[in-house]
Amino acid sequence: MATNAPSNRTRVKRLPARGIYDRSEIDAILDEGFVCHVGFVVDGQPFVIPTGYARDGDRVLIHGSAASRMLRTLENGVDVCVTVTLTDALVLARSAFHHSVNYRSVVILGKAAPINDREDKIDALRILTNHFIPSRWDDCRPPNEVELKATTAMEIPLTEASAKVRTGPPGDEDEDYALPYWAGLLPIPPTTQTPIPDPRLTPGIDIPDYVKGYRRGK
Amino acid sequence: MATNAPSNRTRVKRLPARGIYDRSEIDAILDEGFVCHVGFVVDGQPFVIPTGYARDGDRVLIHGSAASRMLRTLENGVDVCVTVTLTDALVLARSAFHHSVNYRSVVILGKAAPINDREDKIDALRILTNHFIPSRWDDCRPPNEVELKATTAMEIPLTEASAKVRTGPPGDEDEDYALPYWAGLLPIPPTTQTPIPDPRLTPGIDIPDYVKGYRRGK
Repeated sequence: MATNAPSNRTRVKRLPARGIYDRSEIDAILDEGFVCHVGFVVDGQPFVIPTGYARDGDRVLIHGSAASRMLRTLENGVDVCVTVTLTDALVLARSAFHHSVNYRSVVILGKAAPINDREDKIDALRILTNHFIPSRWDDCRPPNEVELKATTAMEIPLTEASAKVRTGPPGDEDEDYALPYWAGLLPIPPTTQTPIPDPRLTPGIDIPDYVKGYRRGK
Repeated sequence: MATNAPSNRTRVKRLPARGIYDRSEIDAILDEGFVCHVGFVVDGQPFVIPTGYARDGDRVLIHGSAASRMLRTLENGVDVCVTVTLTDALVLARSAFHHSVNYRSVVILGKAAPINDREDKIDALRILTNHFIPSRWDDCRPPNEVELKATTAMEIPLTEASAKVRTGPPGDEDEDYALPYWAGLLPIPPTTQTPIPDPRLTPGIDIPDYVKGYRRGK
């Protein structure tokens, strides 16, 4: 599936030039992020809850405690919205009006389905763990039966999804370019700092290369 | 107002020890972030849209194009959820199950009200701009009448809000501490990189100190 034709619900309405329906661009955004915001409705009230996720082919995986209200609500087959937002830079224009953010976001609409099969669930948890930090699944203890039972894993199909992206310098009004204000981008990319070993770490265990070399994005 | 007694809707249900209802802690999180995710419902379908915000006393301000579907929906007085999430560190536990994220999030429930009075709207835009990048309002062109008319500003009261926070090292099972896996935190704080001047910047305009010294958080 190379492109998602926009549905009436996922078509980007404001600034349609920023709308993107190409699956490769949608996937690149999803693969760079690791926290999504899940929207669902309880008694007419929308809730928006942050949670980890991973893309696996044509689906997005989420997981959490089997006691989570969010996941128990989603298991009822309600409509959800999963949004991923990456912020790349503050955009400082000469006019207050044209200040903006360079960002890349994906909005996915659909219903989440629980992953009940034991092997499928383990597979989902492996993908989630390795999306969170590549190579980690093979360097930690896998879930035991009690933990598996306490965990709900769900998938949302990537059938109704769109991206919205702003890139590039400020877009000022022609007559404003002569104003004496600094204008440009202030990049705010994700970065990592020095790993902090657990105070209870067994002496002699070095920081793994996949932690030292960790970076999101390309 | 020093504390928000949790309503039944904002009481943190999963891991209640992570729930925080103290306004000073809620405010600190809101003041550090600058992008929120707004949840609203259209025809039963939840939507979650990222947008800039600023806290001003007991309210959160958002703004955008008067043509925005989100803002036009909110102007109808529907229930909204505004969520702000700061991610501080990846938490690498010895077991896959206890992997986590150190994060600080705020969930606000309520209804948004438009700010229609001209001076109040300008005041809101000033607060939003200076939250986005301190000192900027006095160093850019303020909105003209056409831009003011094209902009909708709204406020959401901070009456029903809660925070959820995870801090500290991994929490492994007692019997797992002897496992030979590295465990600890991988900090992922917001950082800024070297400002990128607009290609059309008038020569001789230096990068302002408030851009060079920009940082979020404390």
